[in-house]
Amino acid sequence: MAEEKLPTRAEDFAEWYNQLVIKADLADYAPVRGCMVVKPYGWALWENITSWLDAEFKKTGHVNAAFPTLIPLSFFEKEKEHVEGFAPELAVVTHGGGEELEEKLAVRPTSETIIGHMYAKWVKSWRDLPILIVQWGSVLRWELRTKLFLRTAEFYWHEGHTAHANAEEAKEEMYRILDIYERFCLEEAAIPVFKGSKSETEKFPGAQITTSIEAMMWDKRALQSGTSHYFGTNFAKAFDIQFLNRENTLQHAETTSWAISSRIIGAMIMVHGDDQGLVMPPRLAPVQAVVIPIFKKDDEKAKVLEVADRIFMELKAAGIRVKMDDRDNVSSGFKFNDWEMRGVPVRVEIGPKDVEKNSVALARRDKPGKEGKSFVPQTDLAATVNALLVEIQAALLQRATEYRDANIHDVKTYDELKEVVKDGWAFAYWCESRECETKVKEETKATTRNIPLNQPDSEGTCVVCGKSSKRKVYFAKAY
Amino acid sequence: MAEEKLPTRAEDFAEWYNQLVIKADLADYAPVRGCMVVKPYGWALWENITSWLDAEFKKTGHVNAAFPTLIPLSFFEKEKEHVEGFAPELAVVTHGGGEELEEKLAVRPTSETIIGHMYAKWVKSWRDLPILIVQWGSVLRWELRTKLFLRTAEFYWHEGHTAHANAEEAKEEMYRILDIYERFCLEEAAIPVFKGSKSETEKFPGAQITTSIEAMMWDKRALQSGTSHYFGTNFAKAFDIQFLNRENTLQHAETTSWAISSRIIGAMIMVHGDDQGLVMPPRLAPVQAVVIPIFKKDDEKAKVLEVADRIFMELKAAGIRVKMDDRDNVSSGFKFNDWEMRGVPVRVEIGPKDVEKNSVALARRDKPGKEGKSFVPQTDLAATVNALLVEIQAALLQRATEYRDANIHDVKTYDELKEVVKDGWAFAYWCESRECETKVKEETKATTRNIPLNQPDSEGTCVVCGKSSKRKVYFAKAY
Repeated sequence: MAEEKLPTRAEDFAEWYNQLVIKADLADYAPVRGCMVVKPYGWALWENITSWLDAEFKKTGHVNAAFPTLIPLSFFEKEKEHVEGFAPELAVVTHGGGEELEEKLAVRPTSETIIGHMYAKWVKSWRDLPILIVQWGSVLRWELRTKLFLRTAEFYWHEGHTAHANAEEAKEEMYRILDIYERFCLEEAAIPVFKGSKSETEKFPGAQITTSIEAMMWDKRALQSGTSHYFGTNFAKAFDIQFLNRENTLQHAETTSWAISSRIIGAMIMVHGDDQGLVMPPRLAPVQAVVIPIFKKDDEKAKVLEVADRIFMELKAAGIRVKMDDRDNVSSGFKFNDWEMRGVPVRVEIGPKDVEKNSVALARRDKPGKEGKSFVPQTDLAATVNALLVEIQAALLQRATEYRDANIHDVKTYDELKEVVKDGWAFAYWCESRECETKVKEETKATTRNIPLNQPDSEGTCVVCGKSSKRKVYFAKAY
Repeated sequence: MAEEKLPTRAEDFAEWYNQLVIKADLADYAPVRGCMVVKPYGWALWENITSWLDAEFKKTGHVNAAFPTLIPLSFFEKEKEHVEGFAPELAVVTHGGGEELEEKLAVRPTSETIIGHMYAKWVKSWRDLPILIVQWGSVLRWELRTKLFLRTAEFYWHEGHTAHANAEEAKEEMYRILDIYERFCLEEAAIPVFKGSKSETEKFPGAQITTSIEAMMWDKRALQSGTSHYFGTNFAKAFDIQFLNRENTLQHAETTSWAISSRIIGAMIMVHGDDQGLVMPPRLAPVQAVVIPIFKKDDEKAKVLEVADRIFMELKAAGIRVKMDDRDNVSSGFKFNDWEMRGVPVRVEIGPKDVEKNSVALARRDKPGKEGKSFVPQTDLAATVNALLVEIQAALLQRATEYRDANIHDVKTYDELKEVVKDGWAFAYWCESRECETKVKEETKATTRNIPLNQPDSEGTCVVCGKSSKRKVYFAKAY
């Protein structure tokens, strides 16, 4: 319950975030270092996220499957970059059934290795390809500095793992998924993102190409919000995924992997939230509208509750995810604050006067105060609320896009870059050398976010070293 | 692919099962001892199972949440019976992030302990109760003798964990869930079950009452197919779940937990499967109908495929889960065997003569050969197939119920019991003493399955010791 106020975002953004996650009832700290408990309200949000993605994956021919949580440690050593990337983060099972294990097992940090092992067993001929499998679940990467949703040892995600007969199809798959991720962010989460390629240093361990979607948070730091990788034949060679092609010749498969994790909830909080709490995009909100009956005297109570109940049933029947808040142990003001903290997009208030006038008051969560309040007839209320939900969804995306674009600056000189990334993103030509990237990181703490797929039709010079350059990149401090 | 025949069930039931799971493409052995990979076809079945259960739980006020996969070892020691039950089966994480851990962690074998810990934190007042949370995921109990779905170290399930203000409500919850489990088995899995209470020795570690649903497999062994437990205040005391009741007095909560696991897939295989392979109940079948175009000459091909495509689209549009098998590298006979192995309820065959006559041939999976074959018009085919799916669903339940009931015998003497449990179930009065139960187990290998909630309105004498007894129990060999 939301008894105490949050610090404002301007006062202390990190503390605003930490308190908000708890007060909005999304998650809690677990009694295991680095881990979280996702509470029912947070999990309902995650279910809305996952059911949209699951449906899109299925429409594009993907199927779900389940691989073990424990992976033999030796599997990680088969791909050189992969073991370097993940070995330091593993949680290791050394004992089982009361005995020390000969073969130590890792709690999966990601499943390329064990899935590669199985694909090698399943793939014999070109007819067995492509394999388009998604696994839903959690993974664990040892992490002690917990920030709920953003950085926890165990987190929730899907991991797609596909194998293809040639490089072209595998790359198409990588981009197809990146497009789904972009559509998810735009249409569902109301978060504008840039699609692009990661630099060599920022790639996934073992990938030939890593692409990502990058979003700007309220504090102007960047958050990588989804990734899609092309491995070439790296994993197929490490795990011996070979098939007889149409010419009857043995050939290695080309593989991809991709993921969006529960981190995306952190992004939604930090993009849309305000000083009163969460602001949920209507399409993903576990509760889209809350009905609050308001009365003082006993003779008002029955009349107000009757109308409130009828309206609740009407909204529910229309498919709106609606709650009735008829608690009798807290005030209306408390209820308003409580549902604002939880980010419910629309509040429906019904008082004695509304009963008389056949009206209700609607309050938009995205526009606090009078600006977001309207008085509408009870007649056709479900249609009115549905239209308002659509309007709020669009308004959130527009606001986030304007905010982002106002805080990205084209820069031509290194001095400009250093100034801009203090409180925004820089968009600049870069020679794609590790030296220039490292210099920026060391001197400004900004990293390359991605090299967007949409590039200007011109050339320029690297913002750091001045060499000629064909592609621009986003530099920003990141989570 | 189903190139080789299964052994018959009569020849070797265990081997029939093992081969069937692989050949029907449900699951595979993982490269981790005791673990399995659930393949896409098996996972699609699991998704149909879980989505029905999830919807029923939500209708009855339950919500989903997620708790960590790793649980501090010390948590298991807080409830005496619980630690005795689970300590020998734990997989233990001793190292994380390259260092030895001070606090060792278990991969969860079940989550009463960590959920109890969180409930203690969340529950303050009677207004916070009941808590009705379900967690979907996997758990791990060290197990080396793997039988896919039936006995694996890691398995998939939901675990419901609820806390209530009094014993009455907690017991109601336990029985409400048992009813949902029974309805799932009857309406969805087409498996008849007995609801009842487990004996003292067969209870869940830490429970005051364990109820179960018990089903009979083809080999007449029993399979516990779901359990629902009432803990009284055992876990609330161990984890300090206390609340201020309406009289403003501190009181321990009453808790329950309950589960159906991926074992239920093993039950479906062993109840419905036949010597040709799986037989899927239509309501859960990932593929309810398969369309197979049949032609020999090239001039037939185009005509047949055109009609087959149209029919495929019609069935799909009607919401039937349908596949088109137009593979050109295998024979029709091969395809028939292949889809029979996978248990697809209805096969739709379309040949050149069907094109001429505006007909198709329908083959029922549950009635192999001529008996299950019918020739029907193409007109309104979706309605015809839908009606057939309903008929097959009912026929499977009827067949399984008749088979079960024919193999359960009321027994009055111990000699009869010994004879009956060699190849069936015995239903008998029992004094509920551990001595008599142990004697039966040692001398016949049969265990008490459950004491059904529906009891005859009479009394009798214990089948073992002859003492007077009020309740009958099922004795059977079990998985």
